[in-house]
Amino acid sequence: MIDVDADAIGQVLLARRAWLAVAESCTGGLLAARLTDVPGASAWFDRGVVTYSNRAKQDLLAVPEALLAAHGAVSGPVAEAMASGLRRRADVDWTVAVTGIAGPGGGTPEKPVGTVWIAWAGPGGVTAQRHQFAGDRAAIRQQTVNISLQGLRARITVK
Amino acid sequence: MIDVDADAIGQVLLARRAWLAVAESCTGGLLAARLTDVPGASAWFDRGVVTYSNRAKQDLLAVPEALLAAHGAVSGPVAEAMASGLRRRADVDWTVAVTGIAGPGGGTPEKPVGTVWIAWAGPGGVTAQRHQFAGDRAAIRQQTVNISLQGLRARITVK
Repeated sequence: MIDVDADAIGQVLLARRAWLAVAESCTGGLLAARLTDVPGASAWFDRGVVTYSNRAKQDLLAVPEALLAAHGAVSGPVAEAMASGLRRRADVDWTVAVTGIAGPGGGTPEKPVGTVWIAWAGPGGVTAQRHQFAGDRAAIRQQTVNISLQGLRARITVK
Repeated sequence: MIDVDADAIGQVLLARRAWLAVAESCTGGLLAARLTDVPGASAWFDRGVVTYSNRAKQDLLAVPEALLAAHGAVSGPVAEAMASGLRRRADVDWTVAVTGIAGPGGGTPEKPVGTVWIAWAGPGGVTAQRHQFAGDRAAIRQQTVNISLQGLRARITVK
């Protein structure tokens, strides 16, 4: 696992005068905390939302209730809707959204503990990936943050 | 420094069927992350917002622009407005809001690095405290989280 340097992400965003916002469910603020650990993050980090409840996902990210009902909160369509909804609401260049099951409870045969969807939205559109992480709650949360940042760095660097 | 047990806070909230939301500036998601580190937090933690920009404070917490202009983002009136605004927006029982200067930049003679305002809003109203923390960015963020949780625990336990 490469430990992704949030500082490097900040430098790219700052150089391109691009703004970032993040939406988190299972990581619960860890993604925002890692990014804002960088001194001067206020020059490129606009906001983070930790949408634990479905109501929060609707209120803050405009995720349609029908989408939540049809696919469940932990799904590709909802991850994409979170990222796209936040990008519109916050009016920023880039967003990352994560939704998953960190455990120990909440798993099902179709979506076991460790199932995480991550979506990135930017000027070129939105993409989502499904991951299946191993380990305990802390390990799943940490891996989700790392993969979220790796994906973000790759995307902001090439666009 | 007593290390506050987020699990104990969750147990009190759950027993009282009370919901919590948090608004963070300088802690950047660490407060939400500590709370959601507790398995089953989704039964009492509704949402967190990391409002780094003033625009985010207005959008997500309904903090009046005039208040930000008159007192600055790091002030008692803004901390109280963040806590009260989130309590209305999220429609929860309890909120905690923090706004401060974690450094290394951003300090002024009146508000040096380490100046942090913390506000708690609940059924009984809203209160705010000013703190002056020592240490580097990480230390200031961590102390802010601890004091926020201590104050929250004291308030939810007596009410």
